[in-house]
Amino acid sequence: MKKRISDKIINRLTLYHCILNDYIDKGEEHISSGQIAQLLKVDDSQVRKDLNLLNNSGKSRVGYIVKELKKSIESTLGFAKTKKAYIVGAGNLGLALAKYRDFSNYGLNIVALFDVDESKIGKEVNNKKIYDIKELPAYVWKEFVDIAILTVPAQYAQSCAEFLTKAGTKYIWNFTPKVLKVPDGVQVWNENIMGNFLQFTYDLN
Amino acid sequence: MKKRISDKIINRLTLYHCILNDYIDKGEEHISSGQIAQLLKVDDSQVRKDLNLLNNSGKSRVGYIVKELKKSIESTLGFAKTKKAYIVGAGNLGLALAKYRDFSNYGLNIVALFDVDESKIGKEVNNKKIYDIKELPAYVWKEFVDIAILTVPAQYAQSCAEFLTKAGTKYIWNFTPKVLKVPDGVQVWNENIMGNFLQFTYDLN
Repeated sequence: MKKRISDKIINRLTLYHCILNDYIDKGEEHISSGQIAQLLKVDDSQVRKDLNLLNNSGKSRVGYIVKELKKSIESTLGFAKTKKAYIVGAGNLGLALAKYRDFSNYGLNIVALFDVDESKIGKEVNNKKIYDIKELPAYVWKEFVDIAILTVPAQYAQSCAEFLTKAGTKYIWNFTPKVLKVPDGVQVWNENIMGNFLQFTYDLN
Repeated sequence: MKKRISDKIINRLTLYHCILNDYIDKGEEHISSGQIAQLLKVDDSQVRKDLNLLNNSGKSRVGYIVKELKKSIESTLGFAKTKKAYIVGAGNLGLALAKYRDFSNYGLNIVALFDVDESKIGKEVNNKKIYDIKELPAYVWKEFVDIAILTVPAQYAQSCAEFLTKAGTKYIWNFTPKVLKVPDGVQVWNENIMGNFLQFTYDLN
């Protein structure tokens, strides 16, 4: 049994991980909690508290060892166990997510895209093929993929969700601005981009 | 002074608002907390608690009055005061956000896009013009826009952030997978899509 880490901490650990990647690119071997704190404009004590949650944070006399801290965040957040997912809707948003190189570094493996548009079907984006949506049920069963990333236009979101759950999808990462009605046993993760914007700007009013 | 509402509640209120829009489209006049709870698979008591935070939730004998509840969420979350923003990077993600019709309903007015790609400059998307990034400083001063939505490729994120802050940008909604180093007085809102995915999938490990 793992200790449950709060959503806010997961969010911050992911940002620390981004910073560590940059440090590795720059050839830096050590990093201090203060350097992380300054970049994210949060308290140093907060960063230290978060990093103390890791099993082995790679702390040394001269700061954290970048590569060890990175590995430790990865094992804590479960990057190691890769999750396969497919994108439904090869519009701008679907294509942007398919091209996002960093996903695979975080344990998300996007295996295919699906669309209804014949001019798109058969094409490839970032080595992932765009299939006819009609082929989805057979594909899902054959490849054991149970995470769908939903990026269709809002008006097709609900009917698409129904089609996906009938095909055996268990998790829908929903990028549409619609609340989806799904059967019990199916989880919807709402990306809720507008909700994020309203959170960020709440204090600006 | 407003009472500060937590990020999680803002997030949920935004989803309730999506549901209310659907009810209005269907011509429904009333909605119960139980109907909202069922769609989002959360506790009825949770929904009632959230709605009690609103000044006037439009509660009547037969449930909440859809239109009043909607208005009440809008005034609480500050939809009324429109915020202008521009998109930097007219790639797939930038175009997807520019085409997102619902933003304007939530008080976000995307006024323009900027890019370096000459084949894109001068074109329009969803009635928003794509400008040469060189024109950004003059545009920002003339139009008083201080929110930038950053959707450039990761390798240009930091240099772009520096260019934006020099041009007077005060808030950067960062969709890139990079942590940005910005001067004091500038706020970065990290969309952190991968962090969200890791939150959602944390219990699946």
